[in-house]
Parts: sequence; C-alpha cells; structure tokens
Amino acid sequence: MSQARMVQIEQNILSKNDQYAAANRNWFAEHGILALNLVSSPGSGKTSLLTRTISDLKSELELSVIEGDQQTANDAERIRETGVKALQINTGKGCHLDAHMVGHALESLHPDDGSVLFIENVGNLVCPAAFDLGEAHKVAILSVTEGEDKPIKYPDMFHAADLILMNKIDLLGYLDFDVEKCIAYAQRVNPGIKVLQVSATTGEGMESWYRWVKATQQLAVIGT
Amino acid sequence: MSQARMVQIEQNILSKNDQYAAANRNWFAEHGILALNLVSSPGSGKTSLLTRTISDLKSELELSVIEGDQQTANDAERIRETGVKALQINTGKGCHLDAHMVGHALESLHPDDGSVLFIENVGNLVCPAAFDLGEAHKVAILSVTEGEDKPIKYPDMFHAADLILMNKIDLLGYLDFDVEKCIAYAQRVNPGIKVLQVSATTGEGMESWYRWVKATQQLAVIGT
Repeated sequence: MSQARMVQIEQNILSKNDQYAAANRNWFAEHGILALNLVSSPGSGKTSLLTRTISDLKSELELSVIEGDQQTANDAERIRETGVKALQINTGKGCHLDAHMVGHALESLHPDDGSVLFIENVGNLVCPAAFDLGEAHKVAILSVTEGEDKPIKYPDMFHAADLILMNKIDLLGYLDFDVEKCIAYAQRVNPGIKVLQVSATTGEGMESWYRWVKATQQLAVIGT
Repeated sequence: MSQARMVQIEQNILSKNDQYAAANRNWFAEHGILALNLVSSPGSGKTSLLTRTISDLKSELELSVIEGDQQTANDAERIRETGVKALQINTGKGCHLDAHMVGHALESLHPDDGSVLFIENVGNLVCPAAFDLGEAHKVAILSVTEGEDKPIKYPDMFHAADLILMNKIDLLGYLDFDVEKCIAYAQRVNPGIKVLQVSATTGEGMESWYRWVKATQQLAVIGT
C-alpha cells in the first residue's frame, strides 16, 4: 500500500472516531457524568491506583469502570471486588480503546447520572493519545520507576493529558529519578499540565488526587 | 522585510512570551491562585459580566482583576467600585496582553494566596488567542448579538478557550441567533469546550458560572 493511501486511511479512522467521541461526550454532558481516560505504560500501577481510589471514594461518589486490555478480564474482576460496576473490553490485536468501543460499553454498563466513570485504557503511551473517547480529561499515570524522560519521549500523550499522577513515590529513595526534571519535561510539552505525586501503595498524596476528582466532578454537572 | 524574517520575529516573540507565561504559571501554582483570562470581541459585555460576578462572589472568594485596554483606565475604575483590587494595563498600540505585562502587574497587584485573579484581555478575538499569560483557562465571552458563526470565524480563540460564556441571552427573543448551531460550531473547533448561557443583565445562568469558578478554584489549590 502506498504511504499516501495509509495516511488517508488513518485520517478516515480518526475522523470516524471523533464522531463517536462527540456522541459519547454529549451523552456524558446530558447525564452529568465525569469520564476520565486513564493512560500509562504497562506496569505503571494503574489498576492498583484505581482500586485504591475506588475503595476510598465509593462512599462519596457513584463510580463505574471500563477496563481496556488486549486480553484477559483480570482487571475488571479486580475492580468488581471493590463493589463497583466494571466492564472489560478486550481489544484483541488493538493497542488502544476507541470511542466506538466505549459507546457500546456504555450501553451495557449504564453509569449513573452524576457519577464518575474511569476508563482504564490499554497500557500504551503512544496510540491512546490519538483516540479521543469523549472523556473530560486524560489522566496519565507515570511511575517513577520508568525514568523522568517519558514526557519528552512520548510528547503526544503528555500533551493530550491534563493531569499526571506520578506514582510509586514510595520508591524514590531507591531510584535515580529527578522529580523536578520530570515536571519540567512535562511542562515543556504541555505548559498547563498539573502533576500530583502519589503512592497507591502507601496512600501518600492520594488525598490531593481525590480532591481533584471531586472538584472536577462538580464541573461535570455544570452546563452543556 | 522578507516574509521569512517576519515569521522568525513572530516566533521569537511567542517563544519569549512563553517563558514569561511559564514563570507566571509557576507563581500562580505556588500561591494557589486561579488565573482566568477573559477574552472576547469588543462590546461582548465582558466588564459588566465581571462586575456582576465580583459583586456576587466577593463574599465567598478573594478576588482581584487585571484590566487590559489600549487606552483609558475606565474599566479598572468600574471594577474598583466593587471593592476589589484592580490594576489597569494600557497596551497603547498593542492589541493583546502579553505574559511580561501580566508578570509586572502581579508585582503591583499582589493577589492573595488562594484567590481568583480575573485578567480581562483587550477586546479582540484574534491576537490574544496566541499569547499565553500563564492562566489556568481562557474564558471566551460571546454575546448572542454577534452571530453564531464566531467560533468558526475565529477558530484559534475558540480552540484555545475552555469555556464560553454565551452572554446577553435576555436578548435572544429579539434576535435571529441559533444557540444550538453556535454550540455545534464551537464544538467543531474544540470538542471539549463547555458552554454556559448567561445574562449579566438579568442574572440568568450566572449561578452556573459561579459554580464553575468555585470548583475550578478548588482545583487551583491542589498540587503543582
């Protein structure tokens, strides 16, 4: 296939995705639902962070989860053990969730009006950056074990995200990871990005993340 | 001057501005200040909307204002009558505020920690779109008297803004203005943009704007 033809096909796919994303976004707005698209490398601790978040917030907010993985329903099972609704999407060979998959998942999951929907994307810092799911924000989870250069190596993702949860900070004492440099790199690709330092293991910093979710949820129920 | 040279100069100016904007943004983050950059055409009712907002919110939030105009200090005087701190920047021939001007204004204005700073930009839907002031959000005020096509005629501005206050909705009965079409145009250039319909004259819809400001201010005091 010629390169021009491949570019054309990619543009058509993204344009189609954007239409589905717009439909999801309208539906979230009508129902006052805050949708957060959680993106990261594999092994950033995304699912552990999410299960802790759910346990700590489920008494205050209505929550549900869409889990994206190439294979297995392990993550959705971990989430369901917390007592909230969760639906697994297996993408098979696909390396990201797309808006059409999420639209179908919504039909089965039925998130409540005024609730928070976490969409845990496939662990991948490249492709999910290009696919709008209709979410209010992409939240990037970056483990300090991955090195501080990730924001400039994967600029599309850190440009697309509004918040970084810098996870596993309980390990900082054992690593050669420069927190300030990582924040500076992130701000180079996205001047307005916010960074919260957290440990899903010890709970350190998680309270700031919960305050962020709660204030953002208040925004989701306002206006169009 | 050659066109290439003009483009080079413009790039240098924007790059310089971005450094000042980053310094402002860091300073806002350190002090937990929410900075909102209010942009619009001339005559959108921006100052009236701002004075009403201040009167209604000043008992709940600490507020201050930077006013940008080519000439006159009339607007800062209108704001000071509400009892909050205001500083006027006259841009002279300049058609927008830049981050360096705002940095200097901060030194004189001394906004309080945890406060909300409104920056009323020069009435202009073009140039202010390109100049980051270090704000958390650009808020575009669009009067329904201006016609619903403004978002697609000034796409840079509506792409850069996170919220539209669709003002003067008390006049909708007298105008041929299609609210839904205007929202669709705005979402075409910026799928995630939020739209609130308000009238600074009658007060209709202003409560949603105030809830947005208060939830957004809560976000400003969280994290880096």
